[in-house]
Amino acid sequence: MSIDRIVVAPSGFKECLSAPDTAAAIVAGVQRVLPHADVQSLPLVDGGEGSARALAEATGGRVHSVRVTGPVGTVVDSHFAMLGGSGPRTAVVEMAAAAGLSLVPRDLRDPGATTSHGVGELIRAALDAGAQRILVGCGDSGICDGGAGALQALGARITDAMGVPVGRGGAALTEVESIDLSRLDPRIRSTEIRVAVNPFNVLCGEQGVARVFGPQKGAAPAQVELLSAAMERWAKVLDRDLHRDLRTAPGSGASGGLGAGLAAGLDAVLLPRYEVMFDHVDLDGAIADADLVLTAEGAIDQQTPRGKIPAEVARLASRHGVPVVALAGTIGERAHLNYDAGIHAIASILPTALPWDEAIAGGARYLTDAPERVLRLLLVGATLSA
Amino acid sequence: MSIDRIVVAPSGFKECLSAPDTAAAIVAGVQRVLPHADVQSLPLVDGGEGSARALAEATGGRVHSVRVTGPVGTVVDSHFAMLGGSGPRTAVVEMAAAAGLSLVPRDLRDPGATTSHGVGELIRAALDAGAQRILVGCGDSGICDGGAGALQALGARITDAMGVPVGRGGAALTEVESIDLSRLDPRIRSTEIRVAVNPFNVLCGEQGVARVFGPQKGAAPAQVELLSAAMERWAKVLDRDLHRDLRTAPGSGASGGLGAGLAAGLDAVLLPRYEVMFDHVDLDGAIADADLVLTAEGAIDQQTPRGKIPAEVARLASRHGVPVVALAGTIGERAHLNYDAGIHAIASILPTALPWDEAIAGGARYLTDAPERVLRLLLVGATLSA
Repeated sequence: MSIDRIVVAPSGFKECLSAPDTAAAIVAGVQRVLPHADVQSLPLVDGGEGSARALAEATGGRVHSVRVTGPVGTVVDSHFAMLGGSGPRTAVVEMAAAAGLSLVPRDLRDPGATTSHGVGELIRAALDAGAQRILVGCGDSGICDGGAGALQALGARITDAMGVPVGRGGAALTEVESIDLSRLDPRIRSTEIRVAVNPFNVLCGEQGVARVFGPQKGAAPAQVELLSAAMERWAKVLDRDLHRDLRTAPGSGASGGLGAGLAAGLDAVLLPRYEVMFDHVDLDGAIADADLVLTAEGAIDQQTPRGKIPAEVARLASRHGVPVVALAGTIGERAHLNYDAGIHAIASILPTALPWDEAIAGGARYLTDAPERVLRLLLVGATLSA
Repeated sequence: MSIDRIVVAPSGFKECLSAPDTAAAIVAGVQRVLPHADVQSLPLVDGGEGSARALAEATGGRVHSVRVTGPVGTVVDSHFAMLGGSGPRTAVVEMAAAAGLSLVPRDLRDPGATTSHGVGELIRAALDAGAQRILVGCGDSGICDGGAGALQALGARITDAMGVPVGRGGAALTEVESIDLSRLDPRIRSTEIRVAVNPFNVLCGEQGVARVFGPQKGAAPAQVELLSAAMERWAKVLDRDLHRDLRTAPGSGASGGLGAGLAAGLDAVLLPRYEVMFDHVDLDGAIADADLVLTAEGAIDQQTPRGKIPAEVARLASRHGVPVVALAGTIGERAHLNYDAGIHAIASILPTALPWDEAIAGGARYLTDAPERVLRLLLVGATLSA
C-alpha cells in the first residue's frame, strides 16, 4: 500500500474556518492514522474572503489594518496583505474586505446603492506601504457599481451629462456620461495590478453581472434590469473615453463589475483567479509527487465543477494521474457532477444530524475526524485489490 | 479489483427504517455503482422492535394482529409472527410489541408500574395459532416486572404473604411471597420456547436490570433501589418455589427481568440473541463467500462493540477475513472502539447539517446515496495499492 505522500489542499469553509485552519485540521486527522506519511499542507484561496490573510500566512508576510469606506458608506475596519518572500513588493487587496457582501447589513442589501470605494482606498494604502505589485482578489462582493467607486477613490472623475460627479452605487451609473483619469493617483501607472477573476463573469448582456449576481446581492427583478442598463451605459463610457470594450470580456463582471473598472481605469490585467492566487503555492509540483490529494470545501455540489477550488485541484491532479478525495460539510445537489470533473470520491465530515450553527461550531473537530474515516476506507479498498 | 460479492447486513435504523427497508436502500445504492456485483441482502434484527415483522418477511411468513394489555394496562394493537419455511411451526413474539418503551406514554414512564402481561397474551395467541416453537425477542422494553405479568397472563398464580395475587408492575414484587404454576396453560409444557437475550443483562446485583436500565425507563434513584429490592425478592421466590437460581444468570435481566420469569416459569431457554435471531439467515455462509460486508446501524458508538448487530457482523466476518464497513446516521462517542471490534471503517450517511426530524425523514435516500461514496473511496484505495 503506497500512500506515503499526501497533499492536503483545501479551500476554507465559509463562515467556519479559514483555508489555513481547514488544512491544519485535516493534516492533524491524517497524521492520526498515518503518522509517518509525508503530508504537505497547501491551503488554497480563490481571492474571496480570507484570501489576503491566508496568503500573508503562506508567504510569511504581514496583514496591514486600514479603515476604509465600507459598501454602505460607513467606515469599516479592513485590511490588505503585504506578502513575504523575494521579488517585487507585492500587496494583496481582497475586495471583500472593503466591499464584501458580509459587510452589508441584511436590511441594507441594495446593490444599486453599495460602493466599491473602499477597494480604491485599500489600493492607495497598499501603494503608501510601498507595494510594487498589487493582486486584487475578487469574490464574495456586495456591490454592483462596475468599480466606479474604487476608481473615484483613486482620483478618477466620473460625471453625468451635467458634469456632476455621479453618486455612490451602481444605480447612479444609469446617468454616467464620462470618465476623466487625469487626476488618477500617479503611482498607479508604475504599478503592476493583477486582478484575480472568475473569467466567466462578464459585465453586460444576458450573462452579465447584474442578471447573474444581482438577485443574491439583494436586487429585486426591476432593479436587476435597471442595474443591467447601468452596466451597459458604464461599458459604453469606458469604451468611448478609455478605448476599452469590456462588455463581455472575460472577468469584466467580476465582483460587481470591479473587473471592468480596474481593467479600464487602472490598466489592470484580469487573470483567471487561480493563476493569480496559486502563484505563491507550488500546487502542481506538490501534486506531481503525491499518492493522494485531499481537498475540501464547505459545500460540494453542482457549482463546484464550475471553477471552485476542489475542481481546480482535481484538474491539476488528473494531469498527474493522482486520485483526489474531497471532504465536504454539505454534499449538495447534483454533487455527482464532480465525479466527471475528476474528483474521485466525496466524503461527508458530519458525524450526526445537527443544526447548522452546531456544525459550524464543531467544524475543526469534524474536519480532523473525517480523514481517519476516509483513510480507513482507502485502506479497505487497498486490501480488496490485493 | 475484486469486489464482486457484497453482503449487505444492516440493523434497522431506530425510529426511521426497519432492517429490511435499510437493507433495500443500501442495496439500491450499491447497484448504482456496481450494477453487476452479486449483492446479498440480509437484514438483521436483534429481537427488539421490528424483529417479528422482519423475520416474517425474511422467511415468507405472516404477521398476526392481536390486541393485548399494554404496559400501562390499556389495550394496545400488537402482533406476533408465524415464520414461513419448513420445520416446526415457529412463532416470533417480540416483547416490545406488547410491553415496549414506545408503548408507554412519556408522562406514564414508571417501570415500577408497567407490566409484561401482554407478552403472555401474545404467547397464548401464538399457541392458539398452532405454534410448536416460540421465539421470544427481547429489547426496547418499557417494563421491569421480572416477567411476572407475562406469567400471570398464562395462568401462573403469584401471591403475597396473605395469599393475595400481586398487582401489576415491578414495585408490587416487593411483597411477592410465592408462585404457583399448577394452572399454567398446559400447552406450554409441550412447546419449545427460546428467548433471545443479551447475556450481559442480569436480574440482580450491581449490574442488575433495575440499576442499569431503570433510569432510562423513567425510574428516579429511590425507585431504582426499590425495584432492585423487588427483583431480589422475586429471584428468591423463583429459587424457592421453582428451584431456579437466576439472580445473575446470563440474560435473566433481559427486558426488565422477562428473561428470568420465562426461564423459571415456562422452562424457556435463554440464548444469546443472535443465535436465535440469525437462525433463519445464513449470515456466516454468506459472509464466507463475500469480498466485502456492508453493515449499518442508526448510531455507531461506544455501545456498538458491546453486542450490537454491526459488531456481531464484524465478529463473523473477521473469522473469514472479510472487511466490514459500517454506515451510520450518527458516529458517536468513542466510535473508534469499533475498529478494535473488527469494523474496518465507518462512514457517515448524512450529506449536510440538518435537524433530527429531517434526517429521519430523508433516511432512505441518504442510505441509498452513502454506499456510492463509500464504494468510490474503496475504488480509490484499490488504485493506491496497485
